[in-house]
Amino acid sequence: MSYLDQITSPTLLISESITRANIKRMADKAKRNGKKLTPHWKTAQSHEIGNWAKEYGIREVTASSIKMAEYLCGQGWDAVHIAFPFNPLETPELNQLAESESLSVQLVNLATTQKLVDGLTNKVGFFIEIDAGYGRTGVHVSDFGLIEDILRTAAKSEKLQFRGFYLHPGHTYYMPDKAEVYEQSRQALHMLKMKYQSEFPNLVTRVGDTPGCAVIEDFGDVDELGPGNFVFFDLMQAELGSCAKEDISVCLAVPVVDISKDRKEILIHGGGVHLAKDVLVDTDGNKNFGEVVFLSENGWTIPADRSYLKSISQEHGVIKASDSLLASVKVGDLLGILPIHSCMTADCMGAYLSLDGKWIDHCEG
Amino acid sequence: MSYLDQITSPTLLISESITRANIKRMADKAKRNGKKLTPHWKTAQSHEIGNWAKEYGIREVTASSIKMAEYLCGQGWDAVHIAFPFNPLETPELNQLAESESLSVQLVNLATTQKLVDGLTNKVGFFIEIDAGYGRTGVHVSDFGLIEDILRTAAKSEKLQFRGFYLHPGHTYYMPDKAEVYEQSRQALHMLKMKYQSEFPNLVTRVGDTPGCAVIEDFGDVDELGPGNFVFFDLMQAELGSCAKEDISVCLAVPVVDISKDRKEILIHGGGVHLAKDVLVDTDGNKNFGEVVFLSENGWTIPADRSYLKSISQEHGVIKASDSLLASVKVGDLLGILPIHSCMTADCMGAYLSLDGKWIDHCEG
Repeated sequence: MSYLDQITSPTLLISESITRANIKRMADKAKRNGKKLTPHWKTAQSHEIGNWAKEYGIREVTASSIKMAEYLCGQGWDAVHIAFPFNPLETPELNQLAESESLSVQLVNLATTQKLVDGLTNKVGFFIEIDAGYGRTGVHVSDFGLIEDILRTAAKSEKLQFRGFYLHPGHTYYMPDKAEVYEQSRQALHMLKMKYQSEFPNLVTRVGDTPGCAVIEDFGDVDELGPGNFVFFDLMQAELGSCAKEDISVCLAVPVVDISKDRKEILIHGGGVHLAKDVLVDTDGNKNFGEVVFLSENGWTIPADRSYLKSISQEHGVIKASDSLLASVKVGDLLGILPIHSCMTADCMGAYLSLDGKWIDHCEG
Repeated sequence: MSYLDQITSPTLLISESITRANIKRMADKAKRNGKKLTPHWKTAQSHEIGNWAKEYGIREVTASSIKMAEYLCGQGWDAVHIAFPFNPLETPELNQLAESESLSVQLVNLATTQKLVDGLTNKVGFFIEIDAGYGRTGVHVSDFGLIEDILRTAAKSEKLQFRGFYLHPGHTYYMPDKAEVYEQSRQALHMLKMKYQSEFPNLVTRVGDTPGCAVIEDFGDVDELGPGNFVFFDLMQAELGSCAKEDISVCLAVPVVDISKDRKEILIHGGGVHLAKDVLVDTDGNKNFGEVVFLSENGWTIPADRSYLKSISQEHGVIKASDSLLASVKVGDLLGILPIHSCMTADCMGAYLSLDGKWIDHCEG
């Protein structure tokens, strides 16, 4: 029986072989460069996919919330890092998790540092998140006053242990010159390492984002790489040049419910609650919410003539169809949709179906 | 103990009193106009909120998928309609549900009609969905050939029973003149009723969308109103003039994790996995992913100075803050965010916390 026989409604498919190839490629690259790969697991959010990753030498992962960290704990990881400015309201949950796990959090201000000094009952590591140009979050790289305030305050508690500096250069997602962003990131982390390593000889520096980690070869003296999306990739990463469309390892199987030959459109059950609403907009303003692939017993193939989701609402998706797709498709068929943003799609769907028909876990929403 | 004491992470709050007022207002309007209110329950997706609705005379609801219909069944509704072009792959699930419930589906083509004729084992009603200008889905209002093909084919099975015509004029969401869209919708449904009621004397016509149902007073001879979003409303509806911001009955409580006085920005734990990524863009191109309200023991208040989410990623949200908000906020505080699209936010969150501290159910994602 093919996995296809199990599908009657929108279902997120995962290709284990493509996923493993993506993990292996990044693990090989990290190894070649003498770096430790500590992937962000907000993309996969899965124990089973974590077990695949362990086969390529990955020993530590990153979560983006306490809830996700709770899910990832107890699975044999050497350490779990929570890469989000720590939310002091969750100190009790952190204390509980830290009883049995090696955890680290991210600090960006004095208020939260002080709250942890006052409230921690178990040992927790911390990274100071650095902003070297992205502008979303983090201590500005030149704000040594704040860095030292955080270090000095944290030092009041032996429970709170400095691990190093974390930098997420998210502007690789929109800056055309990723090498330039990385030069900035490398320099920032190098400078901080030079400045603080006499006082903290074990400090590490970590940089993480898929567009950069996928295309950059020279990571300088950065110690750890922390990309997330590379495990699956998606159309946004293909657009950014991080991967080929053939490297995308998840795809939403959707039922065809209507066909308009006049408008060259196909209506599917598959909308914002399945794919999320991330979108690529081309230079003419055309929106793309996902691209069609053909499903077969062995997985999927990317057609030569592109068909794409031109619009989605809560449950509906409208495909702008190529002539060849229109000529072959029938109501009741299943098509595949490569997602624009696989992290969000996986979070919406909450589970994966493998191509050999097994359900694979994802942290509950 | 206040409901606020239960919150440490992003939590969707619901005001029962505002929700009840929204339901009552629409129920009163339907009654005043002699129409039956059969709301789309894709917004609330909740048994408990369904129980509130029943107190205002609502006896039938609408789902947008078989999965949602399964959730809504068994709750004492007189009928559940699935307002989505029926997906023939789900005929077995439909048969099973129809054993014990009065169900109707939506048909837009001959292929699915024939598959139901062949596959139905229990009685199911059907509406023909009509497109009178929206262009997303439905049989074009003047395509009598297709309408009659569907009716003739359906007549081969005594299990498949014609109920009437359903029209979702979703273009009220972007057309400035809602009265004009409604004139078109009313005329389309009136014409179809005149044409087919001698053959089908019990046929009903249903029109459903919140922007229209909220502002239109004259529904002509339409029998049933099927809006969904009005139960909660949201900022998109406020922007469209369907409601005041004070009518929005759900709000995401979010922890403040960092504050940048220089940039006048506040970082919250609250992103696309909580709010979804629906956005309002103003004439200057500024994006708005939600607006800040102040939480108190009794609910929330809308500040005079507007602060809004200028950007969100998977878990992060960045608030562009007013001076008064900046002057009062601290790391570790909770703020409220009114959502842009409440249906999507509720679907992301999967549960509600009431202002008296009770958890309220939502169909599982």
